[in-house]
Amino acid sequence: MSIRVGILGYGNLGKGVEKAVGVAEDMDLVGVFTRRDPANVSIDSGAKAYHVDALEGMKDDIDVLVICGGSATDLPEMTPKYAAMFNVIDSFDTHANIPVHFTNVDNAAKAAGKIGIISCGWDPGMFSLNRLYATSVLPGGEAYTFWGKGVSQGHSDAIRRIEGVVDARQYTVPVPEALDAVRSGSNPELTTRQKHTRVCYVVVEDGADKAKIEQEIVTMPNYFADYDTTVNFISAEEMKRDHSGLPHGGSVIYTGTTADGQNTHVIEYSLKLDSNPEFTGSVLVAYARAAYRMNQAGDAGAKTVFDVAPALLSPLSGEEMRAHLL
Amino acid sequence: MSIRVGILGYGNLGKGVEKAVGVAEDMDLVGVFTRRDPANVSIDSGAKAYHVDALEGMKDDIDVLVICGGSATDLPEMTPKYAAMFNVIDSFDTHANIPVHFTNVDNAAKAAGKIGIISCGWDPGMFSLNRLYATSVLPGGEAYTFWGKGVSQGHSDAIRRIEGVVDARQYTVPVPEALDAVRSGSNPELTTRQKHTRVCYVVVEDGADKAKIEQEIVTMPNYFADYDTTVNFISAEEMKRDHSGLPHGGSVIYTGTTADGQNTHVIEYSLKLDSNPEFTGSVLVAYARAAYRMNQAGDAGAKTVFDVAPALLSPLSGEEMRAHLL
Repeated sequence: MSIRVGILGYGNLGKGVEKAVGVAEDMDLVGVFTRRDPANVSIDSGAKAYHVDALEGMKDDIDVLVICGGSATDLPEMTPKYAAMFNVIDSFDTHANIPVHFTNVDNAAKAAGKIGIISCGWDPGMFSLNRLYATSVLPGGEAYTFWGKGVSQGHSDAIRRIEGVVDARQYTVPVPEALDAVRSGSNPELTTRQKHTRVCYVVVEDGADKAKIEQEIVTMPNYFADYDTTVNFISAEEMKRDHSGLPHGGSVIYTGTTADGQNTHVIEYSLKLDSNPEFTGSVLVAYARAAYRMNQAGDAGAKTVFDVAPALLSPLSGEEMRAHLL
Repeated sequence: MSIRVGILGYGNLGKGVEKAVGVAEDMDLVGVFTRRDPANVSIDSGAKAYHVDALEGMKDDIDVLVICGGSATDLPEMTPKYAAMFNVIDSFDTHANIPVHFTNVDNAAKAAGKIGIISCGWDPGMFSLNRLYATSVLPGGEAYTFWGKGVSQGHSDAIRRIEGVVDARQYTVPVPEALDAVRSGSNPELTTRQKHTRVCYVVVEDGADKAKIEQEIVTMPNYFADYDTTVNFISAEEMKRDHSGLPHGGSVIYTGTTADGQNTHVIEYSLKLDSNPEFTGSVLVAYARAAYRMNQAGDAGAKTVFDVAPALLSPLSGEEMRAHLL
């Protein structure tokens, strides 16, 4: 029997989840749920589009609901709401608010006897797992996380809000010297500026004051002021030709020692992703499988990637995993 | 209350486990158990040495027994035997025999209500986990495992058995061009010879026939014949000065696609270890913590790293993990 999956939200991430469900042999896509008029939403795979309000009447038709919303306002409301009806999974990534979000989802999911896996994807997600495995094996070491080279949608949006800007793409780029220093095992202290640079491609209106826009970008607090930032003004055609993908990636590098510091060990996990939303969607779908199985086994409440035994992510049997992957 | 750990076997791996227990704040080392006369075994940490026969009388004194024996003859007998008395963990790595070993440990552990985690370390172990996570997230991709640069004890031993050889150290070295091809995402087909080379350092008896020894090494079936092998004859002093460590490491590189092959994603996990037995011992100790906790929660039977939720490896609370590692 296939796992019946619903997708709530049909932006880049929702489309990534749709593609991943499409290649999961043990899953069926029940439909995509949207706040827009479903008549105006064309679903790539041909699955049915529903208005989000239809969800409440479909409690028996969906085994796991994958919630693809923004962490700022959507997920804090949606994930607890739907955890009261379905096994759910989200990619909540506002770090400071994870404890509150976890509690809210936990309460709703426990009351309903459902599983809610939060903060799933690659960071938080696969990167978090690697930080946990490394520090569990080698306590007392140091974890360094580098992001990029890749497009930061939050930073791109921040530039787009500047007057005179038509479009923008911001790449986060790790500093090679910082990566080398960390990989050497020397445990360097690195400032924000020493770890990453920010490279921006900006399309402006005709006659816009480029010098002023550049100044506004590089001095923007929180987003750019603490980084070495490069601004490149390009045409709309160049933007479309050279920057329409959403690549990303990065590395978690952990250095720890044994034998009273005499022996150093370097653990590195890195991702090089052609499409950030498609990879994130693929992670969500693997954890959707786990959410369903944990619930079938009688478990309920909020979970993170830390709580999920890896075997639950795979459609393979225990025997197959031990024979081919161990 | 601390987890009470016993170590069975006191070679390089047992000493690595001892060091890792020493830095685990939630564990106490009850003692080291050996087939030798314990009066002649000096334990680095000052823990007590016991004869292995003492184990049967200490069922209530040990929460987890870490079994540090060889996969060829020790572990197939020891792990099921002691799984009938204790929660146990081993590093069994004879791949073809894992199904039988798993079944034997499972039967013994279930009958005793204990947990037995088998095949723990870095390969099998952390590398296996990365193969499983990657293929679960991106089904249909290709996993490439490279080992080294590092000392292979099995290959070093094989050289030592040749007549006229006094000592030998064999390094397994991944071929840089193969690594580059895999990292590019091009999914190359690679033969054994294309993936790794073998570099040997050999000390011979005075007057030994070096040409004959070299020929015996490079043509040795299973061990060397399928590889490009380099043999360097060195003095006993050079061996001691330059090759007394046991470094190792390697990479699991997984390439998979989304969107019908349009987007490629590369996942790489790599280890660079100053001491293979100390790192392996550290992994065993983290999983010893998990074995104890799974058993406390009422679970029993044989497990592998695939069955262990990552949170069980860490002494941190769920709140701490979510705040600092997620």
